[in-house]
Amino acid sequence: VTGVPERAWVVGLGLIGGSLARELVARGVEVVGWDADPATLRAAALAGVVPGGPGAAPPDTVVLAVPVGDAPEALRRLAPEIGGARLITDAGSTKRRTIAAAEALGLGERFVGAHPMAGDHRGGWAASRPGLFRGARVYLVPTRTTTGAAAALARALWEAVGGRCETMGAAEHDRRVAWTSHLPQAVSSALGAVLSRRSIGPGALGPGGRDVLRLAGSPAATWADIATDNADELEPALAALEAELGRLRAALGSGDRDRVEAWFAAGGAGASTSAAGSGRACLDRPPG
Amino acid sequence: VTGVPERAWVVGLGLIGGSLARELVARGVEVVGWDADPATLRAAALAGVVPGGPGAAPPDTVVLAVPVGDAPEALRRLAPEIGGARLITDAGSTKRRTIAAAEALGLGERFVGAHPMAGDHRGGWAASRPGLFRGARVYLVPTRTTTGAAAALARALWEAVGGRCETMGAAEHDRRVAWTSHLPQAVSSALGAVLSRRSIGPGALGPGGRDVLRLAGSPAATWADIATDNADELEPALAALEAELGRLRAALGSGDRDRVEAWFAAGGAGASTSAAGSGRACLDRPPG
Repeated sequence: VTGVPERAWVVGLGLIGGSLARELVARGVEVVGWDADPATLRAAALAGVVPGGPGAAPPDTVVLAVPVGDAPEALRRLAPEIGGARLITDAGSTKRRTIAAAEALGLGERFVGAHPMAGDHRGGWAASRPGLFRGARVYLVPTRTTTGAAAALARALWEAVGGRCETMGAAEHDRRVAWTSHLPQAVSSALGAVLSRRSIGPGALGPGGRDVLRLAGSPAATWADIATDNADELEPALAALEAELGRLRAALGSGDRDRVEAWFAAGGAGASTSAAGSGRACLDRPPG
Repeated sequence: VTGVPERAWVVGLGLIGGSLARELVARGVEVVGWDADPATLRAAALAGVVPGGPGAAPPDTVVLAVPVGDAPEALRRLAPEIGGARLITDAGSTKRRTIAAAEALGLGERFVGAHPMAGDHRGGWAASRPGLFRGARVYLVPTRTTTGAAAALARALWEAVGGRCETMGAAEHDRRVAWTSHLPQAVSSALGAVLSRRSIGPGALGPGGRDVLRLAGSPAATWADIATDNADELEPALAALEAELGRLRAALGSGDRDRVEAWFAAGGAGASTSAAGSGRACLDRPPG
């Protein structure tokens, strides 16, 4: 299986779709791109992305890189045009709803959900860049009927751009990223909101605090889609974080310095690269 | 006022004291250093710091850079030996207790508290480095009796190593840093603790999430001292953060996507460099 298709459609040219389009263009793929924003399409054309439109040549690979809230409708509109594609994949931060939509549209055999853990607080084509996926974890999420051929094509595609792939089911994926991705975002946003209410800007923070706050600058619309879509999994994670802060307050209230130190040490254990889970499940098979 | 003393004692050679000692050595100051750790003293000696001990030549400037919990006792022990010093300053993250100790010891006229907002998750001499204070906010906190001469010396010292100084009272300082420094640390530590409880290591996070988590790796003992010392100011900040996360949970529970987006947008306002407060109070007089 070669990791590089001959002709790919990339639907949505933001940070993720734009970066993937750049990578594929650099590998000689004919990339046809769509975006709701005409200025983005013009900028992408300068980078070698063929603007999509009526009569665009049919793809062998389709990458859906629109906001997760728009993914089911985008799939529905694409379905009649991509009968010849061997792989349909996406790049969304949640998976249950998109996978269900692909199955309902009869695309299940050729669909493999993908979620590259490569974003940061920046968004849009202007932030897209080659190298974004180098070394990044990429979760691959098959449907109930994904064929082995489609799964292999998806893995080859994401490995070709530097991703380290790990396969899991949609429910497991959405639960996991509630803790590893959506919770860190919510925590940073909550800090931003608290500081903003007190008219404290990021310039008043030190370098460590600014690291914590940076993610709060992520696009609000994107995160509203993600959090709403994954609300049932995110809610317990938020509650756990609130309880953890409550534990620190209780320790401070007790006046017991050692109890406060134990609390900070527990936090340090989670930041340590030797923490349980940091190394496991990194790849479900060896690279290459 | 020259920013550079002739002979300085630096008590405590961790990240902050070590970095300041390196800067002063590079400017030709005779730096006498103390540290509880013999290996640190040996390493510092190789960098030109004279190991302190009985009969050390008297300083014109003293910098206390020990953990905030140890500062009052360290001041008490130093007091009899530093009668000739024109400036006694510190580098601690909280100020009320240290200022009160300096006043009680009769050091008030020559004492100026200082707090460089320059730390990160690393600690110790090994992490110390020149340039740490370049462009960093440095809060200067006088006692009730600090003389103008001592205040000018403190400002000159911290500006000489690149700090941007801002003067405020001890109570205002401790309230402010509860929000700008201690809360970001607590939030990152809480995330680390939550992830650790679920055996999720930092390798499972994307680059943005790892930014949020990084500060959780700060030394627990240092932060136990700081949080315990500033508990009365930190507690309302923690409660505000818990309430903010509760607001997101409520918005998610309502199923109202626009309300969720408004919540994330409020967080983004706090991360924006155009946020109120980001530029103000940067310097209480023009640089230079």
